[in-house]
Amino acid sequence: MEYQKDKGISQAVINRIPRYYRYIQDLKNQNVMRISSKELAATMGLTASQIRQDLNCFGGFGQQGYGYNVEKLCEELAQILGLHRDRKAIIIGVGNIGRALIKNFNFPGSGFTLVCGFDANPDIIGKKLGGIEIQDISRVEDYVRKNKPDIAVLTLPRTAAPDIAKLLVKEGIRGLWNFTGEDLHLEGLGIPVENVHFSDSLMTLCYRID
Amino acid sequence: MEYQKDKGISQAVINRIPRYYRYIQDLKNQNVMRISSKELAATMGLTASQIRQDLNCFGGFGQQGYGYNVEKLCEELAQILGLHRDRKAIIIGVGNIGRALIKNFNFPGSGFTLVCGFDANPDIIGKKLGGIEIQDISRVEDYVRKNKPDIAVLTLPRTAAPDIAKLLVKEGIRGLWNFTGEDLHLEGLGIPVENVHFSDSLMTLCYRID
Repeated sequence: MEYQKDKGISQAVINRIPRYYRYIQDLKNQNVMRISSKELAATMGLTASQIRQDLNCFGGFGQQGYGYNVEKLCEELAQILGLHRDRKAIIIGVGNIGRALIKNFNFPGSGFTLVCGFDANPDIIGKKLGGIEIQDISRVEDYVRKNKPDIAVLTLPRTAAPDIAKLLVKEGIRGLWNFTGEDLHLEGLGIPVENVHFSDSLMTLCYRID
Repeated sequence: MEYQKDKGISQAVINRIPRYYRYIQDLKNQNVMRISSKELAATMGLTASQIRQDLNCFGGFGQQGYGYNVEKLCEELAQILGLHRDRKAIIIGVGNIGRALIKNFNFPGSGFTLVCGFDANPDIIGKKLGGIEIQDISRVEDYVRKNKPDIAVLTLPRTAAPDIAKLLVKEGIRGLWNFTGEDLHLEGLGIPVENVHFSDSLMTLCYRID
């Protein structure tokens, strides 16, 4: 059964789902069979009532006096997130951060297969890295038109971000995972963007230190 | 004048401050002198009333009919975040992500100076990278005790995270910026941790794609 989106669930709840999924998946990997909202709350640093409230937004998978069936909840959360759809991602910019993602990041664990990389550096064009081929950046437009990847991971310099985003949208990209530091807002075009800013969490830490 | 913390400002507002700071800093760099809450709202994808409400938590720096003085607001936000304190950071783990941060990330822009790196790889121990020395991981305990860095950036493998965190806390570390994927919760000990999970934003993107 396909999970139905857009039931008026708040963005705040949706933003917490990946975190639930990570914790429940860890429990599953530790062969935990079931967990109460109270135990889960203690592990996650939340309250039991918040957990029940959040998971109820999606139908509620717990039973009173039993708690949550870990394997079932894990599958349901993956279903909600759409992780089973195995979408295709390309990565644009193979510098340090691009390389770190290609080599170390578990794309399939977040619902994507990384299929191709692009860069302007002739030293790496045509080579393979972490199982994917690095192509010339000048070919990205053509590639997207023909191969229809779902999302692009932007790990190129900030100044190049707006132009490449425009080009990708024109060719039908459906989402951007943006590490360039340039906030991109394409929601008006129906293209979700996740803008990742390392500095935001470090500044928050700076604030929180006494 | 030192900004006073702990006025009961919600975590949600605090989490938005770095984003305000980024936008206002960009405006300053573009030599914009002043901006209305309406214009700022349009740029940031927020509402003008939310912006006024948020910035009012810290005293409100705008004047009716004039808007915000960009330079002054920029300074005030930096002051709130404590960016002027120039704290010291060490980085533990010089793999791909550690290397990307050392080489490309603007630590001073977030209030920190990166002073030293640690790794177990003999090929890089004793070498310099991005202006800092990489020392043997076995020396980190001693280093922290003697040099009292404010925070540690954890970019080592996930399984090593809990033990290294314990050791750092024992030696007086005051905060952790944690990229290991292992959620660390040391708030009970008064040590703030920013747990960075790339997967959370990618899973959110997966959800948001139609």
